[in-house]
Amino acid sequence: MKSRRDFLQKIAASAIAFPFLSPSALATKSPHAAPYDGPLLRVAIMGLGSYGNRVAEAMRDCKQAKLVGAISGTPAKIKDWQSRYNIPEKNCYNYENFEDIKNNPDIDAVYVITPNGLHREQVIRVARAGKHAICEKPMAVNTKEGQDMIDACKQANVKLLVGYRMHFEPHTLEIIRLRKAGEFGKILFFQGLSGFIIGDPTQWRLNKKLSGGGSLMDIGIYSINGSRYMTGEDPVWVLAEETKNHPEKFKEGVDETIQFQLGFPGGAVASCLSTYSMNFLDRFFVNGEKGFAELQPATGYGPIKGRTNKGELIQPHVTHQTLQMDEMAGIILQGKQPIVPVDGEEALKDLKIIDAIYLAINKRKRVDLKL
Amino acid sequence: MKSRRDFLQKIAASAIAFPFLSPSALATKSPHAAPYDGPLLRVAIMGLGSYGNRVAEAMRDCKQAKLVGAISGTPAKIKDWQSRYNIPEKNCYNYENFEDIKNNPDIDAVYVITPNGLHREQVIRVARAGKHAICEKPMAVNTKEGQDMIDACKQANVKLLVGYRMHFEPHTLEIIRLRKAGEFGKILFFQGLSGFIIGDPTQWRLNKKLSGGGSLMDIGIYSINGSRYMTGEDPVWVLAEETKNHPEKFKEGVDETIQFQLGFPGGAVASCLSTYSMNFLDRFFVNGEKGFAELQPATGYGPIKGRTNKGELIQPHVTHQTLQMDEMAGIILQGKQPIVPVDGEEALKDLKIIDAIYLAINKRKRVDLKL
Repeated sequence: MKSRRDFLQKIAASAIAFPFLSPSALATKSPHAAPYDGPLLRVAIMGLGSYGNRVAEAMRDCKQAKLVGAISGTPAKIKDWQSRYNIPEKNCYNYENFEDIKNNPDIDAVYVITPNGLHREQVIRVARAGKHAICEKPMAVNTKEGQDMIDACKQANVKLLVGYRMHFEPHTLEIIRLRKAGEFGKILFFQGLSGFIIGDPTQWRLNKKLSGGGSLMDIGIYSINGSRYMTGEDPVWVLAEETKNHPEKFKEGVDETIQFQLGFPGGAVASCLSTYSMNFLDRFFVNGEKGFAELQPATGYGPIKGRTNKGELIQPHVTHQTLQMDEMAGIILQGKQPIVPVDGEEALKDLKIIDAIYLAINKRKRVDLKL
Repeated sequence: MKSRRDFLQKIAASAIAFPFLSPSALATKSPHAAPYDGPLLRVAIMGLGSYGNRVAEAMRDCKQAKLVGAISGTPAKIKDWQSRYNIPEKNCYNYENFEDIKNNPDIDAVYVITPNGLHREQVIRVARAGKHAICEKPMAVNTKEGQDMIDACKQANVKLLVGYRMHFEPHTLEIIRLRKAGEFGKILFFQGLSGFIIGDPTQWRLNKKLSGGGSLMDIGIYSINGSRYMTGEDPVWVLAEETKNHPEKFKEGVDETIQFQLGFPGGAVASCLSTYSMNFLDRFFVNGEKGFAELQPATGYGPIKGRTNKGELIQPHVTHQTLQMDEMAGIILQGKQPIVPVDGEEALKDLKIIDAIYLAINKRKRVDLKL
């Protein structure tokens, strides 16, 4: 059975499947020139599944963030993580005793990496325990839940960040820099393709209650979010169409394939595809009056490949999660401003677009948006 | 000012703009091994504009078709063509004396290369003069006109072919062959991008009466037609959205940018963009359960570049119009069956889709189709 992890790992090797892409530099770690003696973000991870593991592994190379705690309902996983990541017993929690974390001065933030449908309740618990919350995307399963989370974090006076790892990715940031510098002229068009063939039909991503939807929540969100950072604008309307070829696998409320179009205030349009039933789909393309940029693969774990009308981009590959966690430490501890926001308000915009896409499908017509 | 001709020529050089594409063999003419002594299709061209000239130049290398006549309302153009292409006076006509062509036994077919809005009347005149009609695409400006032309040609017992040059293009045909052989598995998705920035605002292509529309008629038709030959199916629904950023240039009824989606009976979906306001857009992508194929550039005058999940295609470049006219001679004179049809019924399907796209834009909802 194929898993989502397999997909995202395979994307890293997609230069093989895309023989026109020239070989690029091998993965390099971010250079650690001088020993770091600034503030350290001490993080506990809630949800010890495959992506939690990936983040934990990547954090071994962080300099401003450190994995110090683990929260899970499965004692065996806790035990495993303790030995693998050298986590002290006193920093481990389950969902019954989690609230005790508020009395633990050695944990600054909790990274929630659980099924989407649990994010709202869990982030609110993190906030009420007085810890900063980092939440995997989608932040929640709809706008209302997302707003509840933002409100709870504000009330508790803790930060809320969402795991938009691409917002720190060097090729992505280079294209954003070029776009802001006017290299592509006025932006006219964005195209996002996000898809893979999902395996095991019993996984939580195909369970509406836990996932909140289907491919759109999980993988389409990359195109939604990418349309915004690639064009530099927020959409004002959406039009969408759903198709389902395997209703036995994708039950009521779990979308298999959605095509959606977004209109932007400056006149640009975006055309995107989100699917759980096609491979070979991970491409962003932004087209302006003077030039274009392409990312392909655009959102896998890397290496990301980028080019513009002037040629190939030569940014190095860095482990996304290492970079993300270091940068998030800077945001939380030093008030750093990221180039593309990763806060709750940013994530809420994507949820509003997701809600509007589902509405446009149901109404079978264009839906206007105010973000 | 940029012209459409400039665009289609530039597309040929687009390997420069797409540095990931590896250099391919230079253009080669189709080999003429043995001297040809079969039947010859003697063709007159109606409309001596830039594309007419391109066809005339390409026909110098044809072996089964020969340019023998010219029809124009501009005497100077006739004179120019006579000397350039060695056309006898007796095979030249204007729009007043055109009907005399029926008494000319040295002309078999007339290739109508005039503004879209004139095709209906002119093809009917060709048919009534007892000559086979070849008509540039779009065949007409709507389904009704197209049907009139089909009926007139049937009644006159002459053939009606439409200038779908890509239906003979080697990379295109190789992908169709692979798709039919099941190499890509079940087809799930097609993407077509067709666009360039149109120049001179006074040209006939921006005059609704002569063009019948805007970018969709002229360049979007490539994606419409391509969606059918790349997937091997005819669509059953369309959804479309128009955006216009330059209403001073693109007047009422002349579309600037249209995004449209097509649904196919087997469950595949197509997502296409047609625009007169963006460069760098000439790409087809078809995605199946087992593999994908890409053409980029997909429809320019060549060289066309193609690849699949297994690697780059290595078909030679041939001058599209030379190949088209030779193949059309075989269809008309010897009853050859092309791999992808180029007859009036084939063209009518595209007109039905165009009508449905405009209707979907006006109704702001999905329109069902029966082709």
